[in-house]
Amino acid sequence: MEIPSVYLERAVVQFSQLPGIGRKTAMRLVLHLLKREPQDIQMFAQSLNELAENVRYCRVCHNLSDEEECSICQNPKRDHATICVVESIQDVMAIEATQQYVGVYHVLGGIISPMDGIGPQDLEIQSLVERVEAGGIKEVILALSPTMEGDTTCFYIFRKLANCHVDITTLARGVAQNDQLHYTDEVTLGRSIVDRRPFSA
Amino acid sequence: MEIPSVYLERAVVQFSQLPGIGRKTAMRLVLHLLKREPQDIQMFAQSLNELAENVRYCRVCHNLSDEEECSICQNPKRDHATICVVESIQDVMAIEATQQYVGVYHVLGGIISPMDGIGPQDLEIQSLVERVEAGGIKEVILALSPTMEGDTTCFYIFRKLANCHVDITTLARGVAQNDQLHYTDEVTLGRSIVDRRPFSA
Repeated sequence: MEIPSVYLERAVVQFSQLPGIGRKTAMRLVLHLLKREPQDIQMFAQSLNELAENVRYCRVCHNLSDEEECSICQNPKRDHATICVVESIQDVMAIEATQQYVGVYHVLGGIISPMDGIGPQDLEIQSLVERVEAGGIKEVILALSPTMEGDTTCFYIFRKLANCHVDITTLARGVAQNDQLHYTDEVTLGRSIVDRRPFSA
Repeated sequence: MEIPSVYLERAVVQFSQLPGIGRKTAMRLVLHLLKREPQDIQMFAQSLNELAENVRYCRVCHNLSDEEECSICQNPKRDHATICVVESIQDVMAIEATQQYVGVYHVLGGIISPMDGIGPQDLEIQSLVERVEAGGIKEVILALSPTMEGDTTCFYIFRKLANCHVDITTLARGVAQNDQLHYTDEVTLGRSIVDRRPFSA
């Protein structure tokens, strides 16, 4: 498909490099942008420039941040003795959205995945160990995805922290809210029976 | 979902204003961008700025163009006596991709749709009439979508051009390549029988 404008072509190429966006979708997005006022498109461009210039990572927990330390690490009301270890920034936001957690985080930046060539040295595991060894930490929650890679990463961190005298916990597994019981996989369902809890109304 | 950076937030808002992109997808796209080098993000921003500044519409056919007239209108090898009327720039690109058409185009910028409040005055219909009245045109092909709105628009243009002494044609309708005959809707299938053509091997 020949594109009648080099500027259109360039913008389409940029959009089509994003995950899940093919050339046709990219074209639709750019043509939609073109229906707006030029200053709206320029505001879009500006937001990307500011993103490239200003966003950095918290030096403590490696969450996204606009400053040296993120707002969670800077918050004195949070429980700084509890660290929740997560794979990504999205996971921080997902847990924050539950409003059930008052501790701080540690973002690994991925999980151990030999298939993708990602080993422990590619992740923020050493900095987690140093953070725990520095003292003042009571509990480390391993909040990684319940997959093969997540379990491997949990086990690796568990062994690294074995001599640190901290409680190491992991997320509860069981049936999810609104799940149909007969569609739940047998590992999950089995675990939810073994780990059953006293009923409270 | 609270976002830990105002710059991230702003970029997410911009992406989520695009059609078909919700807040979660926008977040995924921006976090993907953040994994790239800052200069890559700035190149994305630059492509948008150049788009806003440089893209304009051909003054003859209203196709997208980098110049006063688009490359199709400027091409002396094209048949300037045949105008193909289409709804959008995407349609121009789709027809060009077939390599079956050597005439020129006229982009309406939409179709008549009372439900969406789009009337003839919102489209490039008057400029089409003026272009045909200026002379030198032999045929006008109405290549609009075979929908209620497309048919309405065709009929409106047909009446506007009634006194212009040009051939007015429309796209052939019939079964599509690789269609299963028994899944084809009855209007299309009926029409393809009525409009049957001599078989040529």
